Amino acid sequence: MQNQIVHESISEMKKYAKALQGNKNYVAKKTADDPDYFRKLAQGQNPKYLLIGCSDSRAPPNEITETDPGEIFIHRNIANVVVPTDLNINCVIQYAIEHLKVHNIVIMGHTFCGGVKAAMKQDSVGGLLDLWLNNLKLVYEKHQDLINQLEDEDDRVACLSHMNVREQVLNVWKNPIVQKSWQDGHPVMVHGWLFRVETGFIEELEIEETIPNNLSKVFQLKFKNVQPPKAKQQIEENEDDRSKSPSIRKRYQRMQSRLETEIKKLAITLQDANQDVEKDVVDQVSEVLQKDLDFKTEDH
Amino acid sequence: MQNQIVHESISEMKKYAKALQGNKNYVAKKTADDPDYFRKLAQGQNPKYLLIGCSDSRAPPNEITETDPGEIFIHRNIANVVVPTDLNINCVIQYAIEHLKVHNIVIMGHTFCGGVKAAMKQDSVGGLLDLWLNNLKLVYEKHQDLINQLEDEDDRVACLSHMNVREQVLNVWKNPIVQKSWQDGHPVMVHGWLFRVETGFIEELEIEETIPNNLSKVFQLKFKNVQPPKAKQQIEENEDDRSKSPSIRKRYQRMQSRLETEIKKLAITLQDANQDVEKDVVDQVSEVLQKDLDFKTEDH
Amino acid sequence: MQNQIVHESISEMKKYAKALQGNKNYVAKKTADDPDYFRKLAQGQNPKYLLIGCSDSRAPPNEITETDPGEIFIHRNIANVVVPTDLNINCVIQYAIEHLKVHNIVIMGHTFCGGVKAAMKQDSVGGLLDLWLNNLKLVYEKHQDLINQLEDEDDRVACLSHMNVREQVLNVWKNPIVQKSWQDGHPVMVHGWLFRVETGFIEELEIEETIPNNLSKVFQLKFKNVQPPKAKQQIEENEDDRSKSPSIRKRYQRMQSRLETEIKKLAITLQDANQDVEKDVVDQVSEVLQKDLDFKTEDH
Amino acid sequence: MQNQIVHESISEMKKYAKALQGNKNYVAKKTADDPDYFRKLAQGQNPKYLLIGCSDSRAPPNEITETDPGEIFIHRNIANVVVPTDLNINCVIQYAIEHLKVHNIVIMGHTFCGGVKAAMKQDSVGGLLDLWLNNLKLVYEKHQDLINQLEDEDDRVACLSHMNVREQVLNVWKNPIVQKSWQDGHPVMVHGWLFRVETGFIEELEIEETIPNNLSKVFQLKFKNVQPPKAKQQIEENEDDRSKSPSIRKRYQRMQSRLETEIKKLAITLQDANQDVEKDVVDQVSEVLQKDLDFKTEDH
Repeated sequence: MQNQIVHESISEMKKYAKALQGNKNYVAKKTADDPDYFRKLAQGQNPKYLLIGCSDSRAPPNEITETDPGEIFIHRNIANVVVPTDLNINCVIQYAIEHLKVHNIVIMGHTFCGGVKAAMKQDSVGGLLDLWLNNLKLVYEKHQDLINQLEDEDDRVACLSHMNVREQVLNVWKNPIVQKSWQDGHPVMVHGWLFRVETGFIEELEIEETIPNNLSKVFQLKFKNVQPPKAKQQIEENEDDRSKSPSIRKRYQRMQSRLETEIKKLAITLQDANQDVEKDVVDQVSEVLQKDLDFKTEDH
Repeated sequence: MQNQIVHESISEMKKYAKALQGNKNYVAKKTADDPDYFRKLAQGQNPKYLLIGCSDSRAPPNEITETDPGEIFIHRNIANVVVPTDLNINCVIQYAIEHLKVHNIVIMGHTFCGGVKAAMKQDSVGGLLDLWLNNLKLVYEKHQDLINQLEDEDDRVACLSHMNVREQVLNVWKNPIVQKSWQDGHPVMVHGWLFRVETGFIEELEIEETIPNNLSKVFQLKFKNVQPPKAKQQIEENEDDRSKSPSIRKRYQRMQSRLETEIKKLAITLQDANQDVEKDVVDQVSEVLQKDLDFKTEDH
Repeated sequence: MQNQIVHESISEMKKYAKALQGNKNYVAKKTADDPDYFRKLAQGQNPKYLLIGCSDSRAPPNEITETDPGEIFIHRNIANVVVPTDLNINCVIQYAIEHLKVHNIVIMGHTFCGGVKAAMKQDSVGGLLDLWLNNLKLVYEKHQDLINQLEDEDDRVACLSHMNVREQVLNVWKNPIVQKSWQDGHPVMVHGWLFRVETGFIEELEIEETIPNNLSKVFQLKFKNVQPPKAKQQIEENEDDRSKSPSIRKRYQRMQSRLETEIKKLAITLQDANQDVEKDVVDQVSEVLQKDLDFKTEDH
Repeated sequence: MQNQIVHESISEMKKYAKALQGNKNYVAKKTADDPDYFRKLAQGQNPKYLLIGCSDSRAPPNEITETDPGEIFIHRNIANVVVPTDLNINCVIQYAIEHLKVHNIVIMGHTFCGGVKAAMKQDSVGGLLDLWLNNLKLVYEKHQDLINQLEDEDDRVACLSHMNVREQVLNVWKNPIVQKSWQDGHPVMVHGWLFRVETGFIEELEIEETIPNNLSKVFQLKFKNVQPPKAKQQIEENEDDRSKSPSIRKRYQRMQSRLETEIKKLAITLQDANQDVEKDVVDQVSEVLQKDLDFKTEDH
């Protein structure tokens, strides 16, 4: 008996020690490539986006996107839910937007999610989790006709995960910190991803509501003491104060979607594109937008 | 003006697209090594521990420990705080212990933490964050004499990060889900790590309170309907029901610390040790423990 | 200037002191009636129901129902919202049901509610409140066609308050603690009230979903380790374990609604009814229920 | 059997119906005194303070202070705890201060509190409550030497209730909304009460920390965009912007404590005092304060 417990203890300790050993290997490799790597990293973070994902061990955001330390600010909870009244996640959002000035928020769900699977069932999964999963049950209730058409349970779970991502994207749009950011002239894009564990691929979901202005009016908050973006102020001198920021926002938003369309049309990957191609796209989109602007100006 | 915004938009989009491109590379590499990699991953997760870390982009747990998808269940929030009344983190803990049956929880803080730095200052950092940072301010208040002896600000931040990890380890010990787990015969170890961003190394903190039984009595909860561990029940038939689980717990705990001591004494790393060395350790510890047990039995 | 501040301070202090003086008067009156009043009160509380109301100073539950200390267990927050993931309110519900064994929960909204009014507007009302009011904005969005038909703002506010009460009643039905209580053979009724500040009258809302079993299946939780009610067990010996508790629940529920119907038909107030009338009602309902039972038994 | 359930149902319904009947009596009485009572009440609330109390049915704030509807804005939860990260209570505080402009917040604990009693024990009281009571266990741990000297359990409960009120008063002082209010020139006093259920009397606790400026520096928050109080600005023209508001705050605070001292010295109750007495107090305090001001001015 003693021996059995000792063996179990050793087994647990080995697993634990493996991670600490892994850390030593990691440092050795990194400093072999660049002896100053960590000193540079210590100088500050400048992440490109905030990712809100699931705690599931199989969905580590950095690995599956091959991004480096310093690139993604991350919150992970059970089933990647954005509960509007959850202080924990709201603090993450506030820090990311107001202090790190990120321009992109990604909600990443995944297939084979244990939390999502549990939410579709009637069995209680524990006092606290039952409360948390209420959020997912609401999404399931809304889309159950669609979901229940699927025969395979894994497909139903994947479908609810997908729908859940869409719902959480909406919750981010409705978030007052995100909305204030737009009105301060700091637009934040929100994206929905579904990580397919079974293939390793991330699916980008097409979300219709791509801008707070498309929400129900009651969710479009208005803030006092908005700091109008200084640089952009001049070109709109003749507009009144009220309309200023929505106009910038809409133009920015339009720009983003035009760019996406043009890029897809041209079937190019901006990463690999040479300077000439990129310049072409910029010119094209600028032209389209200029027409837009002319049209709007005539309109008045 | 138009062109400038287009350029900015393109720059943002490139950053975002890079992650999606990274995902394609990642899948290609993984499936080159093992075409079935993701299909296997989809069959379920069996993580070895729960890690509670900071959202900071420079502290990605898997990278810095070279652990694979499937190995660590993760929650990340601002400054790795375990707020006792936070439903979000408590659901993560409940899922990890009751559903995934993890035996280890790691609190990982890090140096150069923006949240910790902000907590030491008087400047408000935003309505929600001020509330959240209250947790850190309490830790700072308690240890400010020590912390303020340090001249360099980065050192003071590192010191508070360290103290914060210790505090959060205690909060996990006090957690009712963790305590119930012990009483159900499923002991959970809690570890404190400080990730030093400037060197890349993880420091394992020595935490004195290594077991719920060392807490103030008022925090040692007693639960009804405890499920006694079946396999281990037989060897203790002559003990009464009440003493059963504490006895197992204490023995398990003693075992773990003896093992650590022996292993450190022998200056061996279990990972690299050959079978003979491991067998020696097991024998040695078993013997010590047997004496313990004999001693306790005589005692009665 | 000095004098002005002194006068203001005195004015504030007087208001504050008035309440403490009121307390002295209160004690004097109560002990004049019954010298042992407070000693009895100290022996324990046995409240008849839990009331969840608004913090609004004009809606004090005890006054407006002429109930005494010891009769109602109370939680009050902004706009009487039952946020599923709010630990504060869930603890109140748990204490009321599991420790005080209340059988009735009342959600009380009111007209002229500042929180409800604010939720209908787009103006931000502060970082934290904007998050909280998200709950009400969702209710408004769902019913805005109905609400916006009303011309008067006070009517629109009253209508949303009404709809909000209905929604929160549903949230209580979905609550795992409430549902577990039913399955433990301790049924809890949930009622919705609208207090009309302008008349002083409480309106009892007719809520269709009067029982957890009418909820979407995904919200009907099933618990392990349910404690079957002992006294009621015998009469159902021939039913299998699974069906036992739903059957009791349904019967209890049916009983309640039959009683309400019969009482309304007879246009009697049970309070004022003499023993004979009450006995008649009991007999009548018992008879109806017996038929129900016979019918169901034949059915099998 | 049927009859028994019917009788139980009737008994429950009677209790419930009693409150609704009570409401009818209440309206009848109020409108007999003043037919316009409710119409006036509907015009708006202007409460004098926010009271944070316990949900306990025996501690209804309005009754025991003989205050009327419209006078106290109220939040009640288990054991009157001010959890810094609880959105529910923080929204109540934000609404009370920023929208209702209250100048006084009262924390009211009470003797024979079930939540406090449970917190002193080791027995688990349920998944959610164990988390909530962690706040009280911390207070108990800090003061257990004092508390455990008391032989009688009721006394120990009363003592912890007392200590808990003190702790929660501190939590309110540390609250960023309260602190911002001070810096906006809107000082908020915080009071601690212990309601002794066994006598009916409210004890006002003497709390040493009567002002945010006495807190540890790390809890004294500084806000940008503070709105300086306009009326009071002129008398301080020669001071720089930074010092302006603390100076006003300190003077106001000093004024309040001087007033309290003078009034106690004179053993008068301002409520009952005639105009001459009140004028005397005002003059006396103004004089003392003037000397203070002169002294400080010379000092520079």
